Amino acid sequence: MPSSTGLLRAGSSAADQLTVRRHNLSVVLSQLRDHGPRSRARLAEETGLNKATVSSLVSDLAERGLVREGGIERATVGRPGQSIQLDGDRVVAVGAEVNVGYVAVLALDLRGRVVVERRIALDTAHLPPARVLGELAGLLGSVVELLAASGVRPVGLTVALPGLVETETGVLRSAPNLRWTDVAVAAHVRALLDDPPYPVLVGNEANLAALAEIDAGGPGRSADLILLTGSVGVGGGIVAGGQLLRGTRGFAGEVGHLRVRGDGPVCGCGRTGCWEAAVGLDALLTAAAPRDDPVHDPSRDVEQRLAEIARRAAAGDARVLAAIDEIDRWLAVGAGILVNVFNPERLVLGGYFAALQPWIAGSLREELQHHVFAGATGSTRIEFSTLGFSGAVRGGAAQALDRIFSDPTLVGHTGEHLPVAQEAMT
Amino acid sequence: MPSSTGLLRAGSSAADQLTVRRHNLSVVLSQLRDHGPRSRARLAEETGLNKATVSSLVSDLAERGLVREGGIERATVGRPGQSIQLDGDRVVAVGAEVNVGYVAVLALDLRGRVVVERRIALDTAHLPPARVLGELAGLLGSVVELLAASGVRPVGLTVALPGLVETETGVLRSAPNLRWTDVAVAAHVRALLDDPPYPVLVGNEANLAALAEIDAGGPGRSADLILLTGSVGVGGGIVAGGQLLRGTRGFAGEVGHLRVRGDGPVCGCGRTGCWEAAVGLDALLTAAAPRDDPVHDPSRDVEQRLAEIARRAAAGDARVLAAIDEIDRWLAVGAGILVNVFNPERLVLGGYFAALQPWIAGSLREELQHHVFAGATGSTRIEFSTLGFSGAVRGGAAQALDRIFSDPTLVGHTGEHLPVAQEAMT
Repeated sequence: MPSSTGLLRAGSSAADQLTVRRHNLSVVLSQLRDHGPRSRARLAEETGLNKATVSSLVSDLAERGLVREGGIERATVGRPGQSIQLDGDRVVAVGAEVNVGYVAVLALDLRGRVVVERRIALDTAHLPPARVLGELAGLLGSVVELLAASGVRPVGLTVALPGLVETETGVLRSAPNLRWTDVAVAAHVRALLDDPPYPVLVGNEANLAALAEIDAGGPGRSADLILLTGSVGVGGGIVAGGQLLRGTRGFAGEVGHLRVRGDGPVCGCGRTGCWEAAVGLDALLTAAAPRDDPVHDPSRDVEQRLAEIARRAAAGDARVLAAIDEIDRWLAVGAGILVNVFNPERLVLGGYFAALQPWIAGSLREELQHHVFAGATGSTRIEFSTLGFSGAVRGGAAQALDRIFSDPTLVGHTGEHLPVAQEAMT
Repeated sequence: MPSSTGLLRAGSSAADQLTVRRHNLSVVLSQLRDHGPRSRARLAEETGLNKATVSSLVSDLAERGLVREGGIERATVGRPGQSIQLDGDRVVAVGAEVNVGYVAVLALDLRGRVVVERRIALDTAHLPPARVLGELAGLLGSVVELLAASGVRPVGLTVALPGLVETETGVLRSAPNLRWTDVAVAAHVRALLDDPPYPVLVGNEANLAALAEIDAGGPGRSADLILLTGSVGVGGGIVAGGQLLRGTRGFAGEVGHLRVRGDGPVCGCGRTGCWEAAVGLDALLTAAAPRDDPVHDPSRDVEQRLAEIARRAAAGDARVLAAIDEIDRWLAVGAGILVNVFNPERLVLGGYFAALQPWIAGSLREELQHHVFAGATGSTRIEFSTLGFSGAVRGGAAQALDRIFSDPTLVGHTGEHLPVAQEAMT
């Protein structure tokens, strides 16, 4: 409200106060994540907030199910205080994914540990979107029910999708490999889940997998990488200076439809010569085994099918080895483009590329030299993801989790209260 | 120095004090650039520095030839104060360039206005590096002499180079179109200029041209663009979120050697299929006119030769128009890669592409649709640079200028002093 001098005091409006409160909740919660359990007194000391404020913030976070009291912390000076820690047992952030051949769900607890992961083989490309999203919602429902039985509730969901995703509107604009166009995925999933009390967002699967890759790198690892997802489609997630490159409409990283060969097979998008038509999973399987071979069976899990391909490669199956060689050749052409353009510190191969690492790695490094202008490939390192086909779904959950740490008020109060621990604040 | 309690007071060491001083000089100088002439009292008010400090900083900047006193500023309250403004007449930042067919120099005054620009046609690709750098140093010397006659001195130099440039070491690693490998350009130029009292740095020409393009966009223009330089080589400067993408070794944006056609002509780098072999200036000229045509004459200025090509295109010369059509076709293939990967707000074409804009623009926009996965090319706009062949040299000067605004102590004292204007500080 205006004061008598006609000036507004900063922070005096209710909206300002809410913003400050939100920020302070985020500061305290993040401090507990980054530095582990500590007393209210220590939190006050480290954050510069006063002790009464910290006490109130901690109670608030506890009522939202985000923190709880732990053991007694022995301070070097002063009285010992009740330790506060993240509550890993009451909330989860959820990632989901629709991709060619499967739908998947993964939940992370507040500490970023995987609580549950499910993937079911589903011939998504030959089913209507409503049916696929229904299956996904069913899978989500069963996971939520399982978690609810142990008192855990979801506080955010991000759905990873293989195509052009408008994150603001929640609409999947185009996913040729699914044959989907303009599907309002966020709204649809939200309705199927009966309008849940947490945000439901969508994102491009490769972008989310790139986020998971930064997390997997651990602290101190460079955040300057390109992640390639190898599935029926090939997606790119580009991280420069720790930031995901999104582009003016969020469409950056659309590497699957780079034209790498004039004489290539017809792509799902209708063009010829697209990179993913040359190096996607279908190109590998078609070259590696006859049409009636069980590795083509869409009802089998993709990792099982790839394990079979790996077994044959290890046994010296000439057809499989030739198929992988051909993939490598075209993989190097597209990777060469990306390395020339970005000169990244790391090029990380995920999805099926990682599953076949022993056979892909050697000749790819060799081939890539021919396509990169800078000597020694400009110092770019080729690496393989350790996240299998879980990168996107894990990145989705991580993004939902990040939102909670940025704004803990996204999580509603549970009605439960923390016992007042006045002695820790004196 | 350690105090009696064993603690160091922040800001108490000589080094700390120098850092603070440098920062404050930068704040005052930048304020004058961004907001125009103003009194010391107003500078104090706006920067939060106290009046005595501002007065001392202004004197310091004046002794370096960076600011001077202007008219009287009438304040709304209090006494009128002597106005301080950037001194546009005493120092310049210089950009230089070595490229195929020419060397160039451009100087910007402190307000970013072009003071002098020179380009001389030189068959750089067929002369030894020492000879070319000698010519460049000669051109720089004549420009410096000209400026010195009116009391202006250079305070920084950046040399733009068409190839893989290591900015830290000042070494050009590889420039196939010049046939240069591992040339210590910064050290060489510095020696030729008799070790001048200002920094001599190097940069990739397309990266520097991209910086110039942001400046040319003016305030409020998006800083999310890809600049393509069209010369014998084709370079890319990529700006995402206002930051130039450099890559892990500074080699990002090497788009000239993207492989776009398997059956393409042999490139200067020895490979076949490189983008610049298909769309570089030599490809255009070879297709547009017989070998003995004067448009091929390396002793004529490149802009004159392009004006001749434009005249023929305007007159309906079938060979020239067919040559431009072929360029457009392959330009769209490479541009499609960049738009798919970055989804930039603007794709800006510079160099000879801009000189032939009327013939290139139409069919390029049309062709590009076929190569971009997102509809309506993902909202990316195609634009043409207005900087002609001056982009890189202007970007080099702008970068040298930025360094002065970041650290005015890079400019030595001249020995001249500002008249003491005590009345303005009371």
